[in-house]
Amino acid sequence: MPQLAYVDGRIVPLRDARVSVEDRGLQFADSLYEVVAVLNGRLLDWDGHLARLRRGLAELAIDFPMTDAALGIAARHLVAANGQRQALLYLQLGRGAAKRDHVFPKATRASLVMTVRRFDFAARAPQQRSGIKVITQPDLRWGRVDIKTTGLLPNVLAKQAARAAGAFEAWLVTDDGTVREGGSTNAWIVKDGIVITHPMSPHILPGIARATLIRLARDAQIRVEERPFSLAEALAADEALLTSTTAPLLPVVAIDGTPVGTGTPGPMAARLAGLVADEIARQTGWRG
Amino acid sequence: MPQLAYVDGRIVPLRDARVSVEDRGLQFADSLYEVVAVLNGRLLDWDGHLARLRRGLAELAIDFPMTDAALGIAARHLVAANGQRQALLYLQLGRGAAKRDHVFPKATRASLVMTVRRFDFAARAPQQRSGIKVITQPDLRWGRVDIKTTGLLPNVLAKQAARAAGAFEAWLVTDDGTVREGGSTNAWIVKDGIVITHPMSPHILPGIARATLIRLARDAQIRVEERPFSLAEALAADEALLTSTTAPLLPVVAIDGTPVGTGTPGPMAARLAGLVADEIARQTGWRG
Repeated sequence: MPQLAYVDGRIVPLRDARVSVEDRGLQFADSLYEVVAVLNGRLLDWDGHLARLRRGLAELAIDFPMTDAALGIAARHLVAANGQRQALLYLQLGRGAAKRDHVFPKATRASLVMTVRRFDFAARAPQQRSGIKVITQPDLRWGRVDIKTTGLLPNVLAKQAARAAGAFEAWLVTDDGTVREGGSTNAWIVKDGIVITHPMSPHILPGIARATLIRLARDAQIRVEERPFSLAEALAADEALLTSTTAPLLPVVAIDGTPVGTGTPGPMAARLAGLVADEIARQTGWRG
Repeated sequence: MPQLAYVDGRIVPLRDARVSVEDRGLQFADSLYEVVAVLNGRLLDWDGHLARLRRGLAELAIDFPMTDAALGIAARHLVAANGQRQALLYLQLGRGAAKRDHVFPKATRASLVMTVRRFDFAARAPQQRSGIKVITQPDLRWGRVDIKTTGLLPNVLAKQAARAAGAFEAWLVTDDGTVREGGSTNAWIVKDGIVITHPMSPHILPGIARATLIRLARDAQIRVEERPFSLAEALAADEALLTSTTAPLLPVVAIDGTPVGTGTPGPMAARLAGLVADEIARQTGWRG
């Protein structure tokens, strides 16, 4: 069966799924996206992704007439049509195609593209057991990364640098040494039993996995502090972690080659990973 | 005659010109672009645009096998095929289409798209006579805007704010009050006969019209200083200007509603505009 994609209301083979060369997503990165985990054929945290998408649309003043219900039906229909039980649903929603001009075009129809790609969440298990390494890179991104736009080249370059260094992720650090987040993941440290992550701001993405972890940890009486932390603090932490849709929780065991804590996954990472796994199982029935 | 576009080696009607939904330009803004003025059917400053494009390809490690000569032939062929004498050639060159993943894909073919749109350069004449207004906006862009990527959403939002305020352009200003450039133009002031513009840096685009104006002014024994200037300096300047491919030289007569100098186009703007017009005529034979 060929892979199928959704393009502006039609389901087509992925190889035929195309957009205009004057799509503003292509010419201006005037476009939002979401990546949603599909587990047991079910969408994880759909409502959270939808709320973030709606907020982005409002920030960019993109008029998207489809209702939440219709979008949910279309997304689930595409997932079912692809027949993948473990996958990533990619959804991109832009201002549409128009004669090239920076300012918002009049009467352009927003464009919606969705694709589904098989994704092996179980392949994260060895990374969870051994932990992963991160490097640091300067945070060169624009001042509104809380809006989940497709202007991802700074992230691409940071993650490419990580790959070249044999690391899983690049943590993005300000000139004054604050760790903001990773190229496509939120960043966390653990010190004296307290779980610490950068507060919501224009300089971090409001991660869905981040919000879930804060909620689950607090429900379990674990203290969570949303505050900036420095690279020096991270290097002196007991543990470090990262979270994202594609890596729900991974222990970070080294930063720029320096071991974090014991240099092996710690007890808080294991405990939090258990809470996350329980939540995923509760929502989708999936256990890796 | 339908408008024609170039997509990866083929000339097709613009309405059929499409790219994959997995094009990295669309999903990551992992793509470069150029806008080239076509006057009398000839490309203005083609070598400058080509050199900037090659530099961007090197910065992003995009492998693009087409030679300069072949690219020039393809560009001129498309312009001729469209039959437009005054137009903008838009050229977008990206890393290509691949299964979505931030890191550089292996063995992806770079994608090249070109379009030609009629553009009425003569319509700038009234703006040149009356001058135009700019507003200021915070510079929220990423830290490498010297690379001419399609990650233009911050520019889009700034220019949309300008449009909403009835202004032609938004000048992007840092927290400490430095004027970097406009949303799609370089920014200049004139004080005591000296022409001042922000120096080349990762925080401004190396404008082709900017380089041309510096060369022409210096050849005419006009003193040019490439140094940062503040918004306060701009408000106290004798004159202000902007330059770009689509607006070769326009006098700026107000900033955030405050008149610059006399509030009308000044003598240096007129002199520089004359030099630019002569250069355009020399290269293309066109006079507005």
